Amino acid sequence: MADRFAELVQRLETVDDLERAAQILSWDQQTYMPPAGNSARGEQMTTLVETAHARFTAPEVGELLAELEAESADRPDDDERRALLRVTRHDYDQAVRLSPGLVAELQRADAAAYAAWTAARAGRSFGCFLPAFERVVRLMREKADALGFPQERYDALVDLAEPGMTAGRAETLLEELKAVLVPLVAAIGERRGQVDRSLLLQHFPEAEQWQLGREAVRAIGFDFRHGRLDATIHPFETAFSPADVRITTRIDEGFFNQGFFAMVHESGHGMYEQGIPEQWSRTPLGKGISNAVHESQSRLWENLVARSQGFWNFFLPRARHYFPQQFGDASVEEMYRAVNFVEPSLVRVEADEVTYNLHIALRFELERALMRGELQPADVPDAWAEKMQSYLGITPPDDLSGALQDIHWASGLLGSFISYTVGNVISVQFWRAAEVAVGDLEGQIARGEFSPLLQFLRQGLHRYGRALSTEEILRKTTGTGLTAEPYLGYIQAKYREIYGL
Amino acid sequence: MADRFAELVQRLETVDDLERAAQILSWDQQTYMPPAGNSARGEQMTTLVETAHARFTAPEVGELLAELEAESADRPDDDERRALLRVTRHDYDQAVRLSPGLVAELQRADAAAYAAWTAARAGRSFGCFLPAFERVVRLMREKADALGFPQERYDALVDLAEPGMTAGRAETLLEELKAVLVPLVAAIGERRGQVDRSLLLQHFPEAEQWQLGREAVRAIGFDFRHGRLDATIHPFETAFSPADVRITTRIDEGFFNQGFFAMVHESGHGMYEQGIPEQWSRTPLGKGISNAVHESQSRLWENLVARSQGFWNFFLPRARHYFPQQFGDASVEEMYRAVNFVEPSLVRVEADEVTYNLHIALRFELERALMRGELQPADVPDAWAEKMQSYLGITPPDDLSGALQDIHWASGLLGSFISYTVGNVISVQFWRAAEVAVGDLEGQIARGEFSPLLQFLRQGLHRYGRALSTEEILRKTTGTGLTAEPYLGYIQAKYREIYGL
Repeated sequence: MADRFAELVQRLETVDDLERAAQILSWDQQTYMPPAGNSARGEQMTTLVETAHARFTAPEVGELLAELEAESADRPDDDERRALLRVTRHDYDQAVRLSPGLVAELQRADAAAYAAWTAARAGRSFGCFLPAFERVVRLMREKADALGFPQERYDALVDLAEPGMTAGRAETLLEELKAVLVPLVAAIGERRGQVDRSLLLQHFPEAEQWQLGREAVRAIGFDFRHGRLDATIHPFETAFSPADVRITTRIDEGFFNQGFFAMVHESGHGMYEQGIPEQWSRTPLGKGISNAVHESQSRLWENLVARSQGFWNFFLPRARHYFPQQFGDASVEEMYRAVNFVEPSLVRVEADEVTYNLHIALRFELERALMRGELQPADVPDAWAEKMQSYLGITPPDDLSGALQDIHWASGLLGSFISYTVGNVISVQFWRAAEVAVGDLEGQIARGEFSPLLQFLRQGLHRYGRALSTEEILRKTTGTGLTAEPYLGYIQAKYREIYGL
Repeated sequence: MADRFAELVQRLETVDDLERAAQILSWDQQTYMPPAGNSARGEQMTTLVETAHARFTAPEVGELLAELEAESADRPDDDERRALLRVTRHDYDQAVRLSPGLVAELQRADAAAYAAWTAARAGRSFGCFLPAFERVVRLMREKADALGFPQERYDALVDLAEPGMTAGRAETLLEELKAVLVPLVAAIGERRGQVDRSLLLQHFPEAEQWQLGREAVRAIGFDFRHGRLDATIHPFETAFSPADVRITTRIDEGFFNQGFFAMVHESGHGMYEQGIPEQWSRTPLGKGISNAVHESQSRLWENLVARSQGFWNFFLPRARHYFPQQFGDASVEEMYRAVNFVEPSLVRVEADEVTYNLHIALRFELERALMRGELQPADVPDAWAEKMQSYLGITPPDDLSGALQDIHWASGLLGSFISYTVGNVISVQFWRAAEVAVGDLEGQIARGEFSPLLQFLRQGLHRYGRALSTEEILRKTTGTGLTAEPYLGYIQAKYREIYGL
């Protein structure tokens, strides 16, 4: 049976090669490709995705899996092998439900939607995006039906993005958050004058922002020997192996937060992938467990580390070095308060910690209604405006800052937003566990010592790759399952203090 | 039958997608990948190459081809279809002779040889490269035997690089060139003081070299909307589609020619690929015919255009703009003479036009002897030194400037050097034809008008992709087959004038 297991692994490795190759093509498309290359690139990526899917869903893989599962009871101690079979079974059962035709059609619909979205953004009109979006919604309903679901269609998409999650559980979590956050946002609104962020709205030349950002992400532990940082329109992280992790960002010369916190955020994703055991590279175990656990890492470094007072105690001198005019007179306290400014705003990726999850609630509710057929794609902009008003008290002046802002719907990613909220919530669960295990985190960070925290995350979750489930990782590392209480406690304490509530 | 043809084309398109994807991974590996990514990257590329080979050599492709060939007599007017079938048959018959195992082993041997070559270069010792090189030589013999050959084993490799060429024909051509060039090099050696190139050996800061080079390649016609230029250790060109053509170079701050002429050279390759009809993208017709025709384009722009007096008449003011100290006092005549300095030198890619083909003769003769078993890999450095002395009168001080200089043997490329010489020879055949068709080329170039020449090349060869053979292109565009006479006439006239012989 050793040979049969090796045979399975070898097949899975080539599937991984094809999938990673598609990611490399996508990275190039977003970083360096001349736009005219788009058409051929779309075809090349479609072929890679189709080929990977066909190879993974080949009957031989199903036979190997079944055979190896049958005899895995004889090997109770081989955790790694059992984990690989479990994860492969999960992925396989999902993949075989999608026909090659649907996989190819989804890939092409995504490419078309991306092109339409870009054009629609230029014209600030959702109408230009609508036909492509209708096609995506129709195909995502087909996909959900093909995958199957316990309660409602949207469950299938939520589970795909976040294994084990359902629309119902997500709703419960979001309601728990909304009950605290909506009134908190309103209360802060009464006291907006408490925090001055004009410090961050000066002119910050791009070259120095790159230098400062590189220094910051290197300091916290992103390894440039095993990765790199480039410029793109939309920040992202992608891993071609644990030894080759790419992160990207964009810079706004008029707003310090845009580039800086995106770099830290993406490096959080990147450090997770850099911490995956090298020997699992090319296998289904060799990546992060789920979108939510991934997001917990990026948000932990972005918010709990880089938006802490301790961090600016350590890093403000470096920021002053690159921006002596802009930050020369700023105190640590001023910087800390400025980077934690709270204001209802139109764009999710620029939202502060307090309002962020209300953006997610909005998208979750619209997507769910689309899948239930209670909302038509054409009515999305109106529904968007209504919810923005209800949760944040503001209304988008146009679709660019409304329903056209996210790349997700132009990439066939419906069902994935809830992972961001779960990620925020569990980032604080991991943080609390790190405080217990490592001790004085705030003090270490104030001295620029990030290694104990990174080592805790390496040991507590990175090294497991996908060998444990999200639930198992949470229980093992934090002692409990998913719970919003630490997150809500953190948010309320931090912002009541800052805004003197 | 229309459906069957469409079916064949669709299969070939996905093969092309996989091959181009491998090229994209290779481009990234050489431009931006952190070195630690090498190991995973090698596996990813191997999987892409194996998958492309397996898909191309599938029995269904053979059946489709045979069926469509049988009925192609009924369609005497469909030139495009007949060309596609002819080219596909040529490639298919070669590909099916190579077993999947050999393809994979070659790919892995190349990756290992590349790593060993890099290490050997650092240590300047051929010995470190020898075991990997022995493996490459052994596998190339196996490959040649699998492909089959009319006369001798080396024929198989030469034909693979340059369809229609044989070792015997290559030898005849090289002997014809050697008979003129060896004495010409010696005669120039007597009058070396005639040309002063100290102009080019000043300090040229890298940033300005990039700006000047970009301006030059844009001026001659390389289209940056459909391509880009990056830095690599070894200059190369690679095309992901006619709309996405990448060229690269390296810069030497102490020697102007290194970067500048490499940029022009690679842009010659790039303009060829940019001129391939977009509708053939993804098909076997959608690339350059052969290495030699490719090289004829790069050498034409590099030598006949950018090393002409007219070119510097146009471009010296721009060079002075970026390098006022270095070129402020130089005349067009001095610049022209300096960039055409002739000197026996150790490194092929830095060789001048007169000595260049003697470097090729050396490699051709060593490779042929290796394939015949008359030379052992371990004896290559000695044989190298002996031939350098005999053709150029110099001896490499170490292996770095000797047998370790080219990337070819570390990439499994045996048999391909002759294409450079054929390319040089036919570049002048194309040039003579352009002079007849377009008129006053030198005058146009002196005025910075490159478009008539580029249009001639677009019409005369670029637009045919692989739809005509090298021989057909030559006859159609120049009126004759391969002949060394125009090339030898050009070299002798130009360098007798410069050196006053």
